[in-house]
Amino acid sequence: MLHRFYTPDLELGAPRLTLAGDEARHLTRVLRLGVGDEVRVFDGRGLERHALVAAIDRDEVSLTLGTRVEAAREVSFPITLAQAWLRGDAMDGIVRDATMLGVSAIQPLAAERCEVPAASMARSTRLERWHRIAVSSAKQCRRAVVPRIRETAPLGRVLDTAAGAVVVMLVEPAAADPSVVCRAPGAVDSPAGAIVLVGPEGGWTPAELDIASRAGARFVTLGDRTLRAESAALVALPVLLFAWGEL
Amino acid sequence: MLHRFYTPDLELGAPRLTLAGDEARHLTRVLRLGVGDEVRVFDGRGLERHALVAAIDRDEVSLTLGTRVEAAREVSFPITLAQAWLRGDAMDGIVRDATMLGVSAIQPLAAERCEVPAASMARSTRLERWHRIAVSSAKQCRRAVVPRIRETAPLGRVLDTAAGAVVVMLVEPAAADPSVVCRAPGAVDSPAGAIVLVGPEGGWTPAELDIASRAGARFVTLGDRTLRAESAALVALPVLLFAWGEL
Repeated sequence: MLHRFYTPDLELGAPRLTLAGDEARHLTRVLRLGVGDEVRVFDGRGLERHALVAAIDRDEVSLTLGTRVEAAREVSFPITLAQAWLRGDAMDGIVRDATMLGVSAIQPLAAERCEVPAASMARSTRLERWHRIAVSSAKQCRRAVVPRIRETAPLGRVLDTAAGAVVVMLVEPAAADPSVVCRAPGAVDSPAGAIVLVGPEGGWTPAELDIASRAGARFVTLGDRTLRAESAALVALPVLLFAWGEL
Repeated sequence: MLHRFYTPDLELGAPRLTLAGDEARHLTRVLRLGVGDEVRVFDGRGLERHALVAAIDRDEVSLTLGTRVEAAREVSFPITLAQAWLRGDAMDGIVRDATMLGVSAIQPLAAERCEVPAASMARSTRLERWHRIAVSSAKQCRRAVVPRIRETAPLGRVLDTAAGAVVVMLVEPAAADPSVVCRAPGAVDSPAGAIVLVGPEGGWTPAELDIASRAGARFVTLGDRTLRAESAALVALPVLLFAWGEL
Protein backbone atom coordinates (compact mmCIF):
# COMPACT_ATOMS: atom_id res chain seq x y z
CA MET A 1 0.00 0.00 0.00
CA LEU A 2 1.21 3.48 -0.85
CA HIS A 3 2.34 5.80 1.92
CA ARG A 4 0.03 8.73 2.57
CA PHE A 5 1.02 12.24 3.62
CA TYR A 6 -1.14 14.90 5.25
CA THR A 7 -0.99 18.22 3.39
CA PRO A 8 -3.77 20.55 4.53
CA ASP A 9 -2.98 23.04 1.72
CA LEU A 10 -3.49 20.50 -1.08
CA GLU A 11 -5.66 21.79 -3.93
CA LEU A 12 -7.53 19.91 -6.61
CA GLY A 13 -5.94 21.71 -9.58
CA ALA A 14 -2.38 22.37 -8.37
CA PRO A 15 0.37 20.60 -10.40
CA ARG A 16 2.90 20.39 -7.56
CA LEU A 17 3.34 20.73 -3.82
CA THR A 18 6.18 21.04 -1.32
CA LEU A 19 6.21 18.89 1.80
CA ALA A 20 8.08 20.29 4.80
CA GLY A 21 8.43 19.63 8.52
CA ASP A 22 7.37 16.33 10.06
CA GLU A 23 5.74 14.97 6.93
CA ALA A 24 8.89 15.58 4.85
CA ARG A 25 11.15 14.10 7.51
CA HIS A 26 8.88 11.08 7.75
CA LEU A 27 9.10 10.56 3.99
CA THR A 28 12.88 10.92 3.75
CA ARG A 29 14.24 9.66 7.05
CA VAL A 30 11.75 7.14 8.39
CA LEU A 31 10.37 5.64 5.18
CA ARG A 32 13.55 6.43 3.20
CA LEU A 33 11.65 7.13 0.01
CA GLY A 34 13.48 8.74 -2.92
CA VAL A 35 12.97 10.59 -6.19
CA GLY A 36 10.51 8.73 -8.43
CA ASP A 37 8.69 6.99 -5.60
CA GLU A 38 4.92 7.08 -5.73
CA VAL A 39 2.94 8.32 -2.73
CA ARG A 40 -0.45 9.81 -1.94
CA VAL A 41 -1.35 13.12 -0.34
CA PHE A 42 -4.61 14.10 1.38
CA ASP A 43 -5.89 17.38 2.74
CA GLY A 44 -7.81 16.14 5.81
CA ARG A 45 -11.10 17.37 4.34
CA GLY A 46 -11.68 14.53 1.89
CA LEU A 47 -9.37 15.32 -1.06
CA GLU A 48 -6.71 12.72 -1.88
CA ARG A 49 -4.36 12.71 -4.90
CA HIS A 50 -1.63 10.61 -6.45
CA ALA A 51 1.87 12.09 -6.20
CA LEU A 52 5.45 11.37 -7.25
CA VAL A 53 8.58 12.45 -5.39
CA ALA A 54 10.21 14.93 -7.81
CA ALA A 55 13.07 16.26 -5.70
CA ILE A 56 14.43 16.13 -2.17
CA ASP A 57 16.30 19.14 -0.79
CA ARG A 58 17.34 18.83 2.87
CA ASP A 59 14.06 18.74 4.75
CA GLU A 60 11.85 19.73 1.85
CA VAL A 61 10.29 17.31 -0.59
CA SER A 62 8.87 18.44 -3.94
CA LEU A 63 5.98 16.39 -5.18
CA THR A 64 4.45 16.27 -8.65
CA LEU A 65 0.74 15.81 -8.22
CA GLY A 66 -1.42 13.38 -10.18
CA THR A 67 -5.10 12.56 -10.47
CA ARG A 68 -7.60 12.51 -7.67
CA VAL A 69 -7.91 9.23 -5.75
CA GLU A 70 -11.25 7.94 -4.56
CA ALA A 71 -10.85 8.25 -0.81
CA ALA A 72 -12.22 5.87 1.81
CA ARG A 73 -15.99 6.18 2.12
CA GLU A 74 -17.14 8.59 4.81
CA VAL A 75 -20.23 8.38 7.01
CA SER A 76 -23.03 10.12 5.07
CA PHE A 77 -23.71 12.74 7.76
CA PRO A 78 -21.32 14.46 10.20
CA ILE A 79 -20.92 12.83 13.62
CA THR A 80 -19.40 14.78 16.50
CA LEU A 81 -18.09 12.85 19.47
CA ALA A 82 -18.47 15.12 22.50
CA GLN A 83 -16.29 13.37 25.06
CA ALA A 84 -15.87 14.55 28.64
CA TRP A 85 -12.20 15.05 29.54
CA LEU A 86 -10.77 11.93 31.15
CA ARG A 87 -7.65 11.59 33.27
CA GLY A 88 -4.22 10.62 31.98
CA ASP A 89 -3.76 9.41 28.42
CA ALA A 90 -7.25 7.98 28.03
CA MET A 91 -8.27 10.70 25.58
CA ASP A 92 -5.41 9.77 23.22
CA GLY A 93 -6.88 6.35 22.59
CA ILE A 94 -10.37 7.80 22.21
CA VAL A 95 -9.21 10.32 19.58
CA ARG A 96 -7.37 7.55 17.71
CA ASP A 97 -10.32 5.16 17.77
CA ALA A 98 -13.01 7.76 17.04
CA THR A 99 -11.03 8.87 13.99
CA MET A 100 -10.84 5.28 12.80
CA LEU A 101 -14.60 4.91 13.34
CA GLY A 102 -15.39 7.86 11.12
CA VAL A 103 -16.35 10.85 13.31
CA SER A 104 -16.00 14.25 11.69
CA ALA A 105 -15.25 16.22 14.86
CA ILE A 106 -14.20 15.62 18.44
CA GLN A 107 -15.56 18.03 21.01
CA PRO A 108 -13.71 17.89 24.36
CA LEU A 109 -16.34 18.44 27.03
CA ALA A 110 -15.82 20.15 30.40
CA ALA A 111 -18.41 18.09 32.29
CA GLU A 112 -19.22 18.97 35.89
CA ARG A 113 -17.72 15.78 37.31
CA CYS A 114 -14.54 15.83 35.19
CA GLU A 115 -11.56 14.94 37.37
CA VAL A 116 -9.16 16.92 35.19
CA PRO A 117 -8.31 20.38 36.58
CA ALA A 118 -9.68 23.30 34.56
CA ALA A 119 -6.13 24.61 34.15
CA SER A 120 -5.10 21.42 32.35
CA MET A 121 -8.13 21.66 30.09
CA ALA A 122 -7.22 25.24 29.21
CA ARG A 123 -3.73 24.33 28.00
CA SER A 124 -3.93 24.04 24.25
CA THR A 125 -1.01 21.61 23.96
CA ARG A 126 -3.42 18.73 24.49
CA LEU A 127 -5.63 19.83 21.61
CA GLU A 128 -2.56 20.02 19.34
CA ARG A 129 -1.51 16.57 20.50
CA TRP A 130 -4.95 15.17 19.72
CA HIS A 131 -4.85 16.76 16.28
CA ARG A 132 -1.56 14.96 15.59
CA ILE A 133 -3.08 11.69 16.83
CA ALA A 134 -6.11 12.22 14.58
CA VAL A 135 -3.80 12.82 11.58
CA SER A 136 -1.82 9.69 12.35
CA SER A 137 -4.98 7.61 12.80
CA ALA A 138 -6.45 8.94 9.52
CA LYS A 139 -3.26 7.88 7.75
CA GLN A 140 -3.43 4.42 9.23
CA CYS A 141 -7.12 3.78 8.51
CA ARG A 142 -6.80 5.45 5.07
CA ARG A 143 -9.41 8.16 5.67
CA ALA A 144 -8.84 11.39 3.74
CA VAL A 145 -10.74 13.31 6.44
CA VAL A 146 -9.08 14.31 9.70
CA PRO A 147 -11.67 15.01 12.43
CA ARG A 148 -11.60 18.57 13.73
CA ILE A 149 -10.56 18.85 17.37
CA ARG A 150 -12.80 21.58 18.80
CA GLU A 151 -12.11 23.87 21.75
CA THR A 152 -13.16 22.53 25.15
CA ALA A 153 -16.69 23.62 26.11
CA PRO A 154 -19.25 22.86 28.82
CA LEU A 155 -22.30 20.75 27.97
CA GLY A 156 -24.68 23.70 27.69
CA ARG A 157 -22.60 25.40 25.02
CA VAL A 158 -22.23 22.15 23.04
CA LEU A 159 -26.00 21.66 23.08
CA ASP A 160 -26.51 25.26 21.96
CA THR A 161 -24.60 24.50 18.77
CA ALA A 162 -26.45 21.24 18.10
CA ALA A 163 -29.09 22.91 15.90
CA GLY A 164 -30.94 20.19 14.03
CA ALA A 165 -28.58 17.36 14.94
CA VAL A 166 -29.70 14.18 16.64
CA VAL A 167 -28.22 14.29 20.16
CA VAL A 168 -27.48 10.96 21.79
CA MET A 169 -26.36 10.96 25.43
CA LEU A 170 -24.76 7.83 26.79
CA VAL A 171 -26.02 7.14 30.31
CA GLU A 172 -25.30 4.39 32.81
CA PRO A 173 -28.01 1.76 33.23
CA ALA A 174 -28.66 2.82 36.82
CA ALA A 175 -27.92 6.51 36.56
CA ALA A 176 -31.01 7.71 34.78
CA ASP A 177 -34.77 7.55 35.04
CA PRO A 178 -35.52 4.26 33.27
CA SER A 179 -38.60 5.76 31.67
CA VAL A 180 -36.50 8.03 29.47
CA VAL A 181 -33.76 5.56 28.58
CA CYS A 182 -34.07 3.84 25.25
CA ARG A 183 -31.94 1.27 23.55
CA ALA A 184 -32.67 2.42 20.02
CA PRO A 185 -30.61 5.49 19.22
CA GLY A 186 -33.14 7.01 16.80
CA ALA A 187 -32.80 7.53 13.08
CA VAL A 188 -30.62 10.22 11.57
CA ASP A 189 -31.96 11.57 8.32
CA SER A 190 -30.91 15.17 8.61
CA PRO A 191 -27.67 16.46 7.12
CA ALA A 192 -27.15 18.28 10.40
CA GLY A 193 -25.89 14.97 11.66
CA ALA A 194 -25.45 13.56 15.13
CA ILE A 195 -23.74 14.47 18.38
CA VAL A 196 -22.76 11.64 20.71
CA LEU A 197 -22.23 12.75 24.33
CA VAL A 198 -20.00 10.58 26.53
CA GLY A 199 -19.55 11.50 30.19
CA PRO A 200 -16.62 11.44 32.63
CA GLU A 201 -15.59 8.69 35.08
CA GLY A 202 -18.09 9.91 37.66
CA GLY A 203 -21.01 10.16 35.25
CA TRP A 204 -23.30 13.07 34.45
CA THR A 205 -24.78 15.29 37.17
CA PRO A 206 -28.58 15.57 37.51
CA ALA A 207 -28.29 19.13 36.19
CA GLU A 208 -26.50 17.92 33.06
CA LEU A 209 -29.07 15.16 32.48
CA ASP A 210 -31.73 17.82 32.85
CA ILE A 211 -30.35 20.31 30.32
CA ALA A 212 -29.66 17.49 27.86
CA SER A 213 -33.19 16.22 28.26
CA ARG A 214 -34.62 19.70 27.70
CA ALA A 215 -32.43 20.00 24.58
CA GLY A 216 -34.11 16.88 23.20
CA ALA A 217 -31.23 14.45 23.77
CA ARG A 218 -32.02 10.74 23.58
CA PHE A 219 -30.65 8.87 26.58
CA VAL A 220 -29.11 5.62 25.46
CA THR A 221 -27.67 2.87 27.61
CA LEU A 222 -25.45 0.15 26.27
CA GLY A 223 -26.47 -2.97 28.11
CA ASP A 224 -26.46 -3.86 31.77
CA ARG A 225 -22.75 -4.15 32.27
CA THR A 226 -20.82 -1.15 33.52
CA LEU A 227 -18.41 0.21 30.91
CA ARG A 228 -15.26 2.07 31.84
CA ALA A 229 -15.43 5.73 30.80
CA GLU A 230 -12.51 5.29 28.42
CA SER A 231 -14.23 2.41 26.57
CA ALA A 232 -17.70 3.92 26.32
CA ALA A 233 -17.15 5.86 23.08
CA LEU A 234 -15.45 2.96 21.31
CA VAL A 235 -18.33 0.66 22.26
CA ALA A 236 -21.08 3.17 21.48
CA LEU A 237 -19.89 4.49 18.12
CA PRO A 238 -19.90 1.16 16.23
CA VAL A 239 -23.33 0.28 17.62
CA LEU A 240 -24.75 3.68 16.65
CA LEU A 241 -23.16 3.46 13.19
CA PHE A 242 -24.60 -0.02 12.76
CA ALA A 243 -28.04 1.08 13.93
CA TRP A 244 -27.89 4.04 11.56
CA GLY A 245 -26.89 1.81 8.62
CA GLU A 246 -23.50 3.49 8.33
CA LEU A 247 -21.08 0.78 9.34
CA MET B 1 -21.06 0.07 46.12
CA LEU B 2 -19.91 -2.99 48.02
CA HIS B 3 -16.48 -4.44 47.31
CA ARG B 4 -16.52 -7.78 45.55
CA PHE B 5 -14.07 -10.65 46.02
CA TYR B 6 -13.38 -13.57 43.69
CA THR B 7 -13.66 -16.93 45.47
CA PRO B 8 -13.80 -19.79 42.95
CA ASP B 9 -14.63 -22.33 45.71
CA LEU B 10 -17.77 -20.48 46.87
CA GLU B 11 -20.79 -22.77 47.31
CA LEU B 12 -24.45 -21.94 47.47
CA GLY B 13 -25.13 -23.62 50.82
CA ALA B 14 -21.89 -23.02 52.75
CA PRO B 15 -22.25 -20.83 55.88
CA ARG B 16 -18.70 -19.46 55.84
CA LEU B 17 -15.57 -19.12 53.75
CA THR B 18 -11.91 -18.21 54.22
CA LEU B 19 -10.25 -15.71 51.89
CA ALA B 20 -6.49 -16.06 51.46
CA GLY B 21 -3.75 -14.77 49.19
CA ASP B 22 -4.24 -11.73 46.98
CA GLU B 23 -7.96 -11.37 47.67
CA ALA B 24 -7.38 -11.36 51.45
CA ARG B 25 -4.51 -8.89 51.17
CA HIS B 26 -6.62 -6.67 48.95
CA LEU B 27 -9.41 -6.66 51.54
CA THR B 28 -7.19 -5.94 54.54
CA ARG B 29 -4.30 -3.86 53.19
CA VAL B 30 -5.60 -2.02 50.15
CA LEU B 31 -9.24 -1.48 51.06
CA ARG B 32 -8.53 -1.59 54.84
CA LEU B 33 -11.82 -3.28 55.62
CA GLY B 34 -12.36 -4.69 59.11
CA VAL B 35 -14.53 -7.07 61.13
CA GLY B 36 -18.22 -6.36 60.57
CA ASP B 37 -17.78 -4.82 57.13
CA GLU B 38 -20.15 -6.04 54.44
CA VAL B 39 -18.77 -7.35 51.15
CA ARG B 40 -19.77 -9.62 48.33
CA VAL B 41 -18.16 -12.79 47.01
CA PHE B 42 -18.57 -14.41 43.59
CA ASP B 43 -17.34 -17.70 42.15
CA GLY B 44 -16.63 -16.63 38.56
CA ARG B 45 -19.34 -18.98 37.27
CA GLY B 46 -22.35 -16.83 38.09
CA LEU B 47 -22.88 -17.31 41.84
CA GLU B 48 -22.66 -14.20 44.01
CA ARG B 49 -23.46 -13.96 47.76
CA HIS B 50 -23.58 -11.38 50.52
CA ALA B 51 -20.83 -11.74 53.14
CA LEU B 52 -19.64 -10.15 56.39
CA VAL B 53 -16.05 -9.99 57.59
CA ALA B 54 -16.10 -12.22 60.71
CA ALA B 55 -12.40 -12.32 61.61
CA ILE B 56 -9.01 -11.28 60.26
CA ASP B 57 -5.96 -13.39 61.10
CA ARG B 58 -2.73 -12.27 59.41
CA ASP B 59 -3.37 -12.85 55.73
CA GLU B 60 -6.54 -14.85 56.12
CA VAL B 61 -10.01 -13.38 56.29
CA SER B 62 -12.99 -15.36 57.63
CA LEU B 63 -16.29 -14.44 56.06
CA THR B 64 -19.81 -15.30 57.21
CA LEU B 65 -21.88 -15.88 54.09
CA GLY B 66 -25.37 -14.49 53.50
CA THR B 67 -28.06 -14.85 50.89
CA ARG B 68 -27.51 -15.12 47.16
CA VAL B 69 -27.29 -11.85 45.26
CA GLU B 70 -28.84 -11.43 41.84
CA ALA B 71 -25.75 -11.05 39.68
CA ALA B 72 -25.37 -8.82 36.62
CA ARG B 73 -27.33 -10.20 33.67
CA GLU B 74 -25.30 -12.42 31.36
CA VAL B 75 -25.64 -12.85 27.60
CA SER B 76 -28.22 -15.61 27.06
CA PHE B 77 -25.85 -17.90 25.12
CA PRO B 78 -22.10 -18.44 25.50
CA ILE B 79 -19.84 -16.30 23.31
CA THR B 80 -16.21 -17.27 22.78
CA LEU B 81 -13.83 -14.63 21.53
CA ALA B 82 -11.13 -16.47 19.53
CA GLN B 83 -8.47 -13.78 19.21
CA ALA B 84 -5.22 -14.27 17.30
CA TRP B 85 -2.19 -13.50 19.48
CA LEU B 86 -1.09 -9.89 19.06
CA ARG B 87 2.27 -8.33 19.89
CA GLY B 88 3.09 -6.57 23.14
CA ASP B 89 0.39 -5.82 25.68
CA ALA B 90 -2.45 -5.55 23.17
CA MET B 91 -4.04 -8.78 24.42
CA ASP B 92 -4.31 -7.38 27.96
CA GLY B 93 -6.72 -4.68 26.83
CA ILE B 94 -8.68 -7.15 24.71
CA VAL B 95 -9.14 -9.55 27.65
CA ARG B 96 -10.23 -6.65 29.87
CA ASP B 97 -12.71 -5.28 27.34
CA ALA B 98 -14.08 -8.64 26.19
CA THR B 99 -14.79 -9.54 29.82
CA MET B 100 -16.63 -6.27 30.27
CA LEU B 101 -18.64 -6.96 27.10
CA GLY B 102 -19.84 -10.31 28.37
CA VAL B 103 -17.90 -13.09 26.63
CA SER B 104 -17.85 -16.44 28.41
CA ALA B 105 -14.47 -17.62 27.13
CA ILE B 106 -11.38 -16.22 25.45
CA GLN B 107 -9.57 -18.53 23.05
CA PRO B 108 -6.04 -17.37 22.18
CA LEU B 109 -5.50 -18.30 18.56
CA ALA B 110 -2.19 -19.27 16.93
CA ALA B 111 -3.00 -17.84 13.51
CA GLU B 112 -0.57 -18.40 10.64
CA ARG B 113 0.39 -14.74 10.37
CA CYS B 114 0.77 -14.14 14.12
CA GLU B 115 3.91 -12.09 14.75
CA VAL B 116 4.37 -13.54 18.23
CA PRO B 117 6.96 -16.36 18.40
CA ALA B 118 5.54 -19.81 19.11
CA ALA B 119 7.80 -20.04 22.18
CA SER B 120 6.12 -16.97 23.69
CA MET B 121 2.69 -18.43 23.00
CA ALA B 122 3.69 -21.67 24.73
CA ARG B 123 4.64 -19.93 27.98
CA SER B 124 1.67 -20.25 30.27
CA THR B 125 2.49 -17.12 32.30
CA ARG B 126 0.56 -15.06 29.78
CA LEU B 127 -2.58 -17.16 30.22
CA GLU B 128 -2.33 -16.73 34.00
CA ARG B 129 -1.88 -13.02 33.55
CA TRP B 130 -4.98 -12.82 31.34
CA HIS B 131 -6.95 -14.80 33.91
CA ARG B 132 -6.00 -12.21 36.55
CA ILE B 133 -7.02 -9.39 34.17
CA ALA B 134 -10.35 -11.15 33.50
CA VAL B 135 -10.97 -11.45 37.28
CA SER B 136 -10.15 -7.80 37.80
CA SER B 137 -12.36 -6.72 34.90
CA ALA B 138 -15.27 -8.88 36.16
CA LYS B 139 -14.96 -7.21 39.56
CA GLN B 140 -15.02 -3.77 37.99
CA CYS B 141 -17.99 -4.36 35.69
CA ARG B 142 -19.82 -6.34 38.41
CA ARG B 143 -20.13 -9.59 36.44
CA ALA B 144 -20.23 -12.77 38.56
CA VAL B 145 -18.82 -14.73 35.63
CA VAL B 146 -15.09 -14.71 34.82
CA PRO B 147 -14.44 -15.75 31.20
CA ARG B 148 -12.35 -18.90 30.89
CA ILE B 149 -8.98 -18.34 29.26
CA ARG B 150 -8.45 -21.37 27.04
CA GLU B 151 -5.16 -22.90 25.90
CA THR B 152 -3.70 -21.46 22.69
CA ALA B 153 -4.81 -23.43 19.61
CA PRO B 154 -4.59 -23.08 15.82
CA LEU B 155 -7.72 -22.16 13.86
CA GLY B 156 -8.46 -25.71 12.70
CA ARG B 157 -8.65 -27.04 16.23
CA VAL B 158 -10.87 -24.16 17.36
CA LEU B 159 -13.27 -24.83 14.49
CA ASP B 160 -13.31 -28.55 15.36
CA THR B 161 -14.72 -27.71 18.77
CA ALA B 162 -17.31 -25.29 17.42
CA ALA B 163 -20.04 -27.98 17.17
CA GLY B 164 -23.36 -26.23 16.68
CA ALA B 165 -22.12 -22.72 17.41
CA VAL B 166 -22.53 -19.81 15.04
CA VAL B 167 -19.04 -18.97 13.80
CA VAL B 168 -18.39 -15.37 12.82
CA MET B 169 -15.05 -14.53 11.23
CA LEU B 170 -14.01 -10.89 11.08
CA VAL B 171 -12.40 -10.12 7.72
CA GLU B 172 -10.96 -6.97 6.21
CA PRO B 173 -13.09 -5.26 3.56
CA ALA B 174 -10.51 -5.94 0.85
CA ALA B 175 -9.17 -9.26 2.07
CA ALA B 176 -11.98 -11.57 1.17
CA ASP B 177 -14.12 -12.53 -1.79
CA PRO B 178 -16.87 -9.90 -1.61
CA SER B 179 -19.47 -12.49 -2.60
CA VAL B 180 -19.10 -14.28 0.72
CA VAL B 181 -18.84 -11.25 2.97
CA CYS B 182 -22.00 -10.18 4.72
CA ARG B 183 -22.76 -7.36 7.08
CA ALA B 184 -25.43 -9.18 9.03
CA PRO B 185 -23.84 -11.57 11.48
CA GLY B 186 -26.69 -14.11 11.45
CA ALA B 187 -29.06 -15.02 14.26
CA VAL B 188 -28.01 -17.11 17.23
CA ASP B 189 -30.79 -19.26 18.60
CA SER B 190 -28.86 -22.29 19.72
CA PRO B 191 -27.54 -22.72 23.26
CA ALA B 192 -24.28 -23.81 21.65
CA GLY B 193 -23.63 -20.10 21.24
CA ALA B 194 -21.25 -18.16 19.08
CA ILE B 195 -17.55 -18.03 18.30
CA VAL B 196 -16.12 -14.74 17.09
CA LEU B 197 -12.80 -15.10 15.24
CA VAL B 198 -10.49 -12.08 15.13
CA GLY B 199 -7.23 -12.29 13.15
CA PRO B 200 -3.69 -11.00 13.68
CA GLU B 201 -2.08 -7.74 12.44
CA GLY B 202 -1.33 -9.31 9.06
CA GLY B 203 -4.81 -10.74 8.54
CA TRP B 204 -5.89 -14.30 7.78
CA THR B 205 -4.13 -16.45 5.18
CA PRO B 206 -6.09 -17.82 2.20
CA ALA B 207 -5.80 -21.28 3.78
CA GLU B 208 -7.40 -20.03 7.00
CA LEU B 209 -10.20 -18.29 5.13
CA ASP B 210 -10.75 -21.56 3.29
CA ILE B 211 -11.01 -23.85 6.30
CA ALA B 212 -13.25 -21.34 8.07
CA SER B 213 -15.49 -21.15 5.02
CA ARG B 214 -15.71 -24.92 4.83
CA ALA B 215 -16.58 -25.01 8.54
CA GLY B 216 -19.56 -22.76 7.82
CA ALA B 217 -18.13 -19.52 9.22
CA ARG B 218 -19.88 -16.30 8.25
CA PHE B 219 -17.42 -13.70 7.02
CA VAL B 220 -18.30 -10.33 8.46
CA THR B 221 -16.68 -7.00 7.72
CA LEU B 222 -17.14 -3.94 9.87
CA GLY B 223 -17.37 -1.07 7.46
CA ASP B 224 -14.94 0.25 4.90
CA ARG B 225 -12.41 1.72 7.27
CA THR B 226 -9.43 -0.36 8.27
CA LEU B 227 -9.46 -1.24 11.98
CA ARG B 228 -6.32 -1.88 13.95
CA ALA B 229 -6.05 -5.54 15.01
CA GLU B 230 -6.18 -4.56 18.68
CA SER B 231 -9.44 -2.62 18.24
CA ALA B 232 -11.28 -5.13 16.06
CA ALA B 233 -12.74 -7.25 18.88
CA LEU B 234 -13.89 -4.26 20.92
CA VAL B 235 -15.64 -2.82 17.85
CA ALA B 236 -17.11 -6.14 16.68
CA LEU B 237 -18.45 -7.50 19.97
CA PRO B 238 -20.87 -4.63 20.76
CA VAL B 239 -22.19 -4.65 17.18
CA LEU B 240 -22.72 -8.43 17.26
CA LEU B 241 -24.38 -8.23 20.69
CA PHE B 242 -26.62 -5.44 19.44
CA ALA B 243 -27.51 -7.35 16.28
CA TRP B 244 -28.26 -10.45 18.38
CA GLY B 245 -30.51 -8.45 20.75
CA GLU B 246 -28.15 -9.03 23.67
CA LEU B 247 -26.76 -5.60 24.40
